[in-house]
Amino acid sequence: MNKFSIGVDLGGTNLRIAAVDEQGALVEKVTLGTRISLGPDRVIGDMCDAIERMSEKYSNSAPLIGIGVGVPGIIDVQTGLVRESPNLPGFVDYPARAAIEQRLKTIVILENDANVAALGEKWLGAAKDYSDVAILTLGTGVGGGLVLGGTIWRGANGMAGEFGHTTVEPDGHPCGCGNRGCLEQYASATAVVRMAREAIASRGESALARAASSDPEFSAKSIYNLAMEGDEDARRIFRYVGRCLGIVLSSLVNSLNLPIYVIGGGVSSAWEAFSPAIFEELRRRSIVYAATAPPDPSAHKEGASARVVPGPGHKTIITRALLGSDAGLYGAARLPMIAEAKIAEAKR
Amino acid sequence: MNKFSIGVDLGGTNLRIAAVDEQGALVEKVTLGTRISLGPDRVIGDMCDAIERMSEKYSNSAPLIGIGVGVPGIIDVQTGLVRESPNLPGFVDYPARAAIEQRLKTIVILENDANVAALGEKWLGAAKDYSDVAILTLGTGVGGGLVLGGTIWRGANGMAGEFGHTTVEPDGHPCGCGNRGCLEQYASATAVVRMAREAIASRGESALARAASSDPEFSAKSIYNLAMEGDEDARRIFRYVGRCLGIVLSSLVNSLNLPIYVIGGGVSSAWEAFSPAIFEELRRRSIVYAATAPPDPSAHKEGASARVVPGPGHKTIITRALLGSDAGLYGAARLPMIAEAKIAEAKR
Repeated sequence: MNKFSIGVDLGGTNLRIAAVDEQGALVEKVTLGTRISLGPDRVIGDMCDAIERMSEKYSNSAPLIGIGVGVPGIIDVQTGLVRESPNLPGFVDYPARAAIEQRLKTIVILENDANVAALGEKWLGAAKDYSDVAILTLGTGVGGGLVLGGTIWRGANGMAGEFGHTTVEPDGHPCGCGNRGCLEQYASATAVVRMAREAIASRGESALARAASSDPEFSAKSIYNLAMEGDEDARRIFRYVGRCLGIVLSSLVNSLNLPIYVIGGGVSSAWEAFSPAIFEELRRRSIVYAATAPPDPSAHKEGASARVVPGPGHKTIITRALLGSDAGLYGAARLPMIAEAKIAEAKR
Repeated sequence: MNKFSIGVDLGGTNLRIAAVDEQGALVEKVTLGTRISLGPDRVIGDMCDAIERMSEKYSNSAPLIGIGVGVPGIIDVQTGLVRESPNLPGFVDYPARAAIEQRLKTIVILENDANVAALGEKWLGAAKDYSDVAILTLGTGVGGGLVLGGTIWRGANGMAGEFGHTTVEPDGHPCGCGNRGCLEQYASATAVVRMAREAIASRGESALARAASSDPEFSAKSIYNLAMEGDEDARRIFRYVGRCLGIVLSSLVNSLNLPIYVIGGGVSSAWEAFSPAIFEELRRRSIVYAATAPPDPSAHKEGASARVVPGPGHKTIITRALLGSDAGLYGAARLPMIAEAKIAEAKR
């Protein structure tokens, strides 16, 4: 390889670190537990130890471009502070960038985890040929990231991309954010389980109820399995997930007219169960989608026949993420490469 | 003046033409009737006659940069075709740009009317100091335009900015676009009158009913006047307009985190009646707004204390348009100036 950079996914449970070369090839990947109870200094210390071990192996043969770190929370990109993170208690106005830079003496870039996932899918995944993409990440919550003109769209305060808090039902289920009826309340793993428990409470004896009482880890995955076995209650829940995603995507398509929208996160494994409802809502609800829908929207294969050049004939693609939980790692590794290219361009 | 360009607002009723200099000063403005029944060639002919008369007066002393034309409909910016326009019957795949260029031998740029209004407010109006702005235009329908990085965001097919067709109530009032519960069904002049008639039908004798039967032009303006006189039925309608705008703005603020959002169009004259509900919804529904709201959101004065540099301290501004129906004229005149600047930059 020519040069490489290191991407970090600083999760509340796992700390994942990868060396990636400029072509996007994975050189090495390591996963550690995040020892969050020991405090942010120790977590950053563990991270730096692992990065050091990894980069030493390769930096003799190829130069390290820098380090990118995806963090689940509010980041001040300019100062490199982690303002707050629900999954990383203790990281309150924590100068993560300065701490890592001081120790490792290289370029360090922090970024929100949903943003780096979007960047990863844009670089190497489902949105590889596109410079504009929105990604919705269906996990415990619903995150989002927006890439416009090839770079992350942060917005005026670095808070853009909160698609999970788009209002779907104005008087719907209360959300932790203070709103009611947010997408997150209908399309996250948490929401799938809640909707299943609501269905059980209102209908009594059912396959769903039996699964809930016999399966100690009754989860979105268990409900998806029931749906795939044909259970109507479980299928109805995923149709509702699709309906709500379809409503939000319709408004996004009408507002932004992006070439591609990507659905990622754990719940996206249930694509078969919820995606038909997405396309049904889109055709009905979005004039822009109706005018730009591909003949068979669910048949999109990455790189197949994507018409990448924007123009009247472009078809709007709604598709699954391809990189799974690695999207964030690749996107984080990409950050210092983009920064280096910008610096090089400015010097010319 | 140094140089000037000509902006055209090609409406279904009026054809308005203005000469504007590079500083945004109005040199001359003329309004003609749009003789739509005579067909597109005659309309374009009338337009070219008027432009010729106007530009001849000034082109000896200052060079004409070019002509920008705002059209209410679907434009193919690349080919200069008017694809279709509900307000301009006869303009179906009509080569408007070629027709004007051939006749006047200068640069001609076509653009959607909501987009040029956004560009006008960005250049000289409510969003003057900002390079990123969304504008919602509340007229007969609800239009929208998006400016990102100082230029119009057209999207992959030139169809971006359809904020009027954001879903507010998933099972709400049917919309002409095929969806249900679009913002346009609750925040346009048409919607205000419809909601008033619904209120009359359900409540019987009231000030609203008296106004509807005695006022031959019972309009959004009449209902606003009643609201300002304290009529509770009329006030409730505008609170609902504000609620629906607030729901859509909350999702936009969460998704894009722009520094400023501008409300224009005829209905925006009723700002006092509907804007309190907007801010109430925003505070409750948008985590990004809650974190970035100015202390007194309704007190925003253009240029007053706007913190233009984006960053953690930026305050999200929601405000009225300033240029009224002239926004589109100024925005259209701006188009050839931007094109000229881009060409100059490319040559360097």
